[in-house]
Amino acid sequence: MKITINTSKKQELIDITDKVNDIVKKSKVKNGICNIFITHATAAIIINENYDLNVCVDFLKALNKAIPDNAGYLHDRVDGNAGAHIKAAVLGPSESIPVENGKLKLGTWQSIMVVELDGPRSNRKVEVRVIKEN
Amino acid sequence: MKITINTSKKQELIDITDKVNDIVKKSKVKNGICNIFITHATAAIIINENYDLNVCVDFLKALNKAIPDNAGYLHDRVDGNAGAHIKAAVLGPSESIPVENGKLKLGTWQSIMVVELDGPRSNRKVEVRVIKEN
Amino acid sequence: MKITINTSKKQELIDITDKVNDIVKKSKVKNGICNIFITHATAAIIINENYDLNVCVDFLKALNKAIPDNAGYLHDRVDGNAGAHIKAAVLGPSESIPVENGKLKLGTWQSIMVVELDGPRSNRKVEVRVIKEN
Repeated sequence: MKITINTSKKQELIDITDKVNDIVKKSKVKNGICNIFITHATAAIIINENYDLNVCVDFLKALNKAIPDNAGYLHDRVDGNAGAHIKAAVLGPSESIPVENGKLKLGTWQSIMVVELDGPRSNRKVEVRVIKEN
Repeated sequence: MKITINTSKKQELIDITDKVNDIVKKSKVKNGICNIFITHATAAIIINENYDLNVCVDFLKALNKAIPDNAGYLHDRVDGNAGAHIKAAVLGPSESIPVENGKLKLGTWQSIMVVELDGPRSNRKVEVRVIKEN
Repeated sequence: MKITINTSKKQELIDITDKVNDIVKKSKVKNGICNIFITHATAAIIINENYDLNVCVDFLKALNKAIPDNAGYLHDRVDGNAGAHIKAAVLGPSESIPVENGKLKLGTWQSIMVVELDGPRSNRKVEVRVIKEN
């Protein structure tokens, strides 16, 4: 199953936990794992708190400090988005989460978020697979 | 299955390889994958060497240099642990490891470690799922 | 199934997408997930663009800036490769990718790459598992 999202900023975190849980429910898998994979090279999937939305602001600030944009990258001469590629590669396109009693087994403060690093973009695709534990 | 651990320091790496292998053995799965997932937003799972425990010391030092604590984060006004959230999000809560002949197929120098980033804490929970390859 | 590669530089990115797709094809799994796991503590697996090979150059440059080698690490007294261990732990040894119609469901700009961080090395081993979705 697939989730499609549109982003509205250059960099942005978008919560997809409810959409993933809907797919887990539809799969009828009671126990197993759920793989979430974004099929783009300038976006990523992370899991963290967003009850205080400032965690997302702080996350992007620290990420941009550790891996700055426009640091003389060679790919910037082609596309201007080398920083987005590098950040996406470090964060990774995917997470795998346990499923228990037909629901994602996340901690209280864990949400699944798409990290947009080169937006705004239409039709960012996230693939979701649910695998049964035997 | 679940592993519960207590941590005793602010930041700490704790080896859980043997505990995960015990769960793999109990699952009776001979070949497949094992998903390890920590259900907390200020801790993470990594895989690396710890035969020389200084690798763990070096890891935390480099991580704190790349993503410093107390760097004027907005979430610090609420909880004082924004740095821990950011590091946990970058490292990720999970790893998936192949299972071969009923055991984790790790390299000689690979151990599974919980990364405590906001300790000390009691009852850190790690979920372990073992999925059979068909 | 296993992929074996040799590396020729200290740091290098090596595309293994075709080799992984060959294993997916041989597995006869039509839909599910594919887990790719490198069994070494000084190498990693990432997914990103390499159509413009400069993305790989930029990636290594930014990674070495965020996590420098030879920064007074304690493990360097033993092995001289602490920086490689730390980078490997941050990037992670594994990725899990959806499989659709017997092929990896990657985005147009996504390739699977081994990140050599302490080369050159012979016989780097990458384990590949393909798990069927029920």
